[in-house]
Amino acid sequence: MDMESWQFPPRYDAAYRPDAGSRYWFPVRETMPAGDRDRAILSRLQEVCRYAYAYSNFYRRKWDEAGFHPEHLRALEDFEDKVPVITKRDLRESQARAPSFGDYLCVPDSEIFHIHGTSGTTGRPTAFAINRTDWDAIANAHARIMWGMGMRPSDTVFIAAILSLYLGSWGALAGAERLGARSFPFGAGAPGMTLRAASWLNDVKPTVFYGTPTYALHLADTALKEGLNPREFGLQRLLFSGEPGASIPSVCDKLIEAYGARVFDSGSMAEMTPWMHASGTAESSPGMLLWQDIVYTEVCDPQTFRRVPYGQRGTPVYTHLERTSQPMIRLVSGDLTVWENGPTPCGRTYPRLPQGIFGRIDDMFTIRGENVYPSEIDAVLNALSGYGGEHRIVITREGAMDELLIRIEPTAEVFGNAQRQQAFKQEVHGRILKTLAVRAMIEVVEPASFPRTDFKARRVIDDREVFRELNQKLKA
Amino acid sequence: MDMESWQFPPRYDAAYRPDAGSRYWFPVRETMPAGDRDRAILSRLQEVCRYAYAYSNFYRRKWDEAGFHPEHLRALEDFEDKVPVITKRDLRESQARAPSFGDYLCVPDSEIFHIHGTSGTTGRPTAFAINRTDWDAIANAHARIMWGMGMRPSDTVFIAAILSLYLGSWGALAGAERLGARSFPFGAGAPGMTLRAASWLNDVKPTVFYGTPTYALHLADTALKEGLNPREFGLQRLLFSGEPGASIPSVCDKLIEAYGARVFDSGSMAEMTPWMHASGTAESSPGMLLWQDIVYTEVCDPQTFRRVPYGQRGTPVYTHLERTSQPMIRLVSGDLTVWENGPTPCGRTYPRLPQGIFGRIDDMFTIRGENVYPSEIDAVLNALSGYGGEHRIVITREGAMDELLIRIEPTAEVFGNAQRQQAFKQEVHGRILKTLAVRAMIEVVEPASFPRTDFKARRVIDDREVFRELNQKLKA
Repeated sequence: MDMESWQFPPRYDAAYRPDAGSRYWFPVRETMPAGDRDRAILSRLQEVCRYAYAYSNFYRRKWDEAGFHPEHLRALEDFEDKVPVITKRDLRESQARAPSFGDYLCVPDSEIFHIHGTSGTTGRPTAFAINRTDWDAIANAHARIMWGMGMRPSDTVFIAAILSLYLGSWGALAGAERLGARSFPFGAGAPGMTLRAASWLNDVKPTVFYGTPTYALHLADTALKEGLNPREFGLQRLLFSGEPGASIPSVCDKLIEAYGARVFDSGSMAEMTPWMHASGTAESSPGMLLWQDIVYTEVCDPQTFRRVPYGQRGTPVYTHLERTSQPMIRLVSGDLTVWENGPTPCGRTYPRLPQGIFGRIDDMFTIRGENVYPSEIDAVLNALSGYGGEHRIVITREGAMDELLIRIEPTAEVFGNAQRQQAFKQEVHGRILKTLAVRAMIEVVEPASFPRTDFKARRVIDDREVFRELNQKLKA
Repeated sequence: MDMESWQFPPRYDAAYRPDAGSRYWFPVRETMPAGDRDRAILSRLQEVCRYAYAYSNFYRRKWDEAGFHPEHLRALEDFEDKVPVITKRDLRESQARAPSFGDYLCVPDSEIFHIHGTSGTTGRPTAFAINRTDWDAIANAHARIMWGMGMRPSDTVFIAAILSLYLGSWGALAGAERLGARSFPFGAGAPGMTLRAASWLNDVKPTVFYGTPTYALHLADTALKEGLNPREFGLQRLLFSGEPGASIPSVCDKLIEAYGARVFDSGSMAEMTPWMHASGTAESSPGMLLWQDIVYTEVCDPQTFRRVPYGQRGTPVYTHLERTSQPMIRLVSGDLTVWENGPTPCGRTYPRLPQGIFGRIDDMFTIRGENVYPSEIDAVLNALSGYGGEHRIVITREGAMDELLIRIEPTAEVFGNAQRQQAFKQEVHGRILKTLAVRAMIEVVEPASFPRTDFKARRVIDDREVFRELNQKLKA
């Protein structure tokens, strides 16, 4: 079978590019019958497991303990039955034991090409070591997927996310470079950069934007305040990762409205780079496809880590098929999604995440017996015409009587009119009750009360003190 | 003559690397008799001028007006006699006339690989468009020069300067990647990044650091405050550009003291990327060599733009020999240096800048007939044992009676003792008088009065209001 040179370790011709008219980077791999692909994936899994067992103490120890050996892998079902999952905590422990890159680094230090990491905002950061072979394969995978979104060498890609530890920006850059497009790696995060980004977008007029949804909306606001119209930047495609949002219809609509451009969701986890392996395409968007021949994704029950049937909710469990430096084999994301199967508008034979990745398993909280995800609240609020763009979700988990408080900014118009403000408050209450079957307290706050962020918004506050204080204030 | 494939446009084998034991990346090019090199440079200049005349309206217009044609170039002397200089202002005007990249862009838009720019803190920013051929040549040049500093593929390079418009960080990254070293492109500039940089340096222990001298000292302070000792980071080489400092003996000593590592100065201008063409080497440091076969540098009289004799002060005028996308031909830097010739400890046959680039022609001010450069004041203050690390230079240019005020932070010990503070003040006054023949007013301010910066320090304040105010306060 012609697998367009699909092999492990991956080796791609750096000069390869499909015909400009081709919808697909790798037509065979992207459109083959899913059953054929599954058979090929099994071969890759066998190779990857043998490789990891041979070169990594981490996997050998873990699998020996679990009674798994790569030779036991004879069918795809064996993979979920026999291979234990790993977690971010396992990775952190491995790196504490074997600094700096853990004993799941399968190549010698001398092969390392790039070092990146997690920001470590919670707990010990994790270091990523990527060798040249993997970097080239990542670039190829991202170029391939960006091609699938409709990008071509004539595009100019503006990268508006910090270029530092965060692998998101680097992956987008490597893909744009490999595709043969023009890269404008602007970055983000330093004081004054947002305004300057707006000015450069207006001057250079790139056709593609990469960043987080939160930041893109903040940038649009900043531009408008300076008298620049983001719709005149000439952007055609907005490509997002780093947080949900681009797959939330109301947020997606706001992005389209602000920039007059198409919106693409993408991304799984930094550990899983090439993280674009979950991505929308030109014809299959919104939502994301799972490019199973790059990263094999199982959407699993979060207790058993067995695949849930298509159409059901679960947490993605990821396995690299093209990484040699720090291959992840059954890494639990802790994220939340629904997967589906069947024909896709773009003709690719991959499973789909129609709502993208919309939350975290551990973000879920329970309000009087109802399971609630913050992303569901985000979606409800984003759909309200009077919504001012930011809110905070304050929860308690004190015993059975959990309480939910939503602090919300309306638009300046709504805030300035006592009657409309009251109506807005009731509307929020009603919509939350209707959609989530939960009674929430609503506090309307002044527009621009909450700081806008250059990166991922953190909107959930789980703080009993804060809650008590606000509660008293509201009841007073 | 074997020029190690020296040609225009440049074409280098991306797989080439010298033997690990070789001092030189290109032994022939780096050590050839200067006269032979000059003959080869003349050929390159002829090629570059013909190329620019053919592909750039900017140069054709400028040269037609000046009566210069590439065919007139028959000796190296013709170059300084007949080719008009260009300035940053010319570039800005060209970009205003022909957005976004000016009519000195000699390649079609479709060839552009990376877009960067100046930060535009003063006036209209300038956009840089670099094609793939140039990017590869830049990477080769930087790898070559970093090799000359003693770097090898076993090194890990920590890049501690913002990855955005600023080409400094990208050039260091491209060089490290091309050399085969491990790159840790950390960046800088976002809130909290300095502390995190210290933590990652301590964990990963890179061997090479790239940034500005000001930021390296700030980072060392930040680390020490957190109980981390920068000497334990294990850095062996500190590589600087972006501002003078690494060639100022007292600043250099501070950097060595803080990190216990060797210090290398490098860099000319972003427009001149590969900016490392002026750089120290393992054996010829402090100071910088002019790698004349990459960028042809003439240190010139700032009025006539003819070369000054070796041993004299002048402003560097630069010409690219290996750039096809936005080649600079006789770009006036406005910087200030002294150049020398003769044998170098490393055996390279390039001219030297023993004091690096130590100021700006237009930074010069006159105090009662004496020409003073802020860098000279910096050097005097940095050499004082009681100096606390920051100062401001306040000047007026009001008529003949110019005044100079130096506001200086001493160490906490000196500040805390009235007698020592008084002695320090007198010492500053005396040293300035002795070295610069100028009588300055000295104001001792509390340690940490002046903000430390992530990037280039701006210490000169030319503000009559500020001056009058301070003057009155001091005389009161």
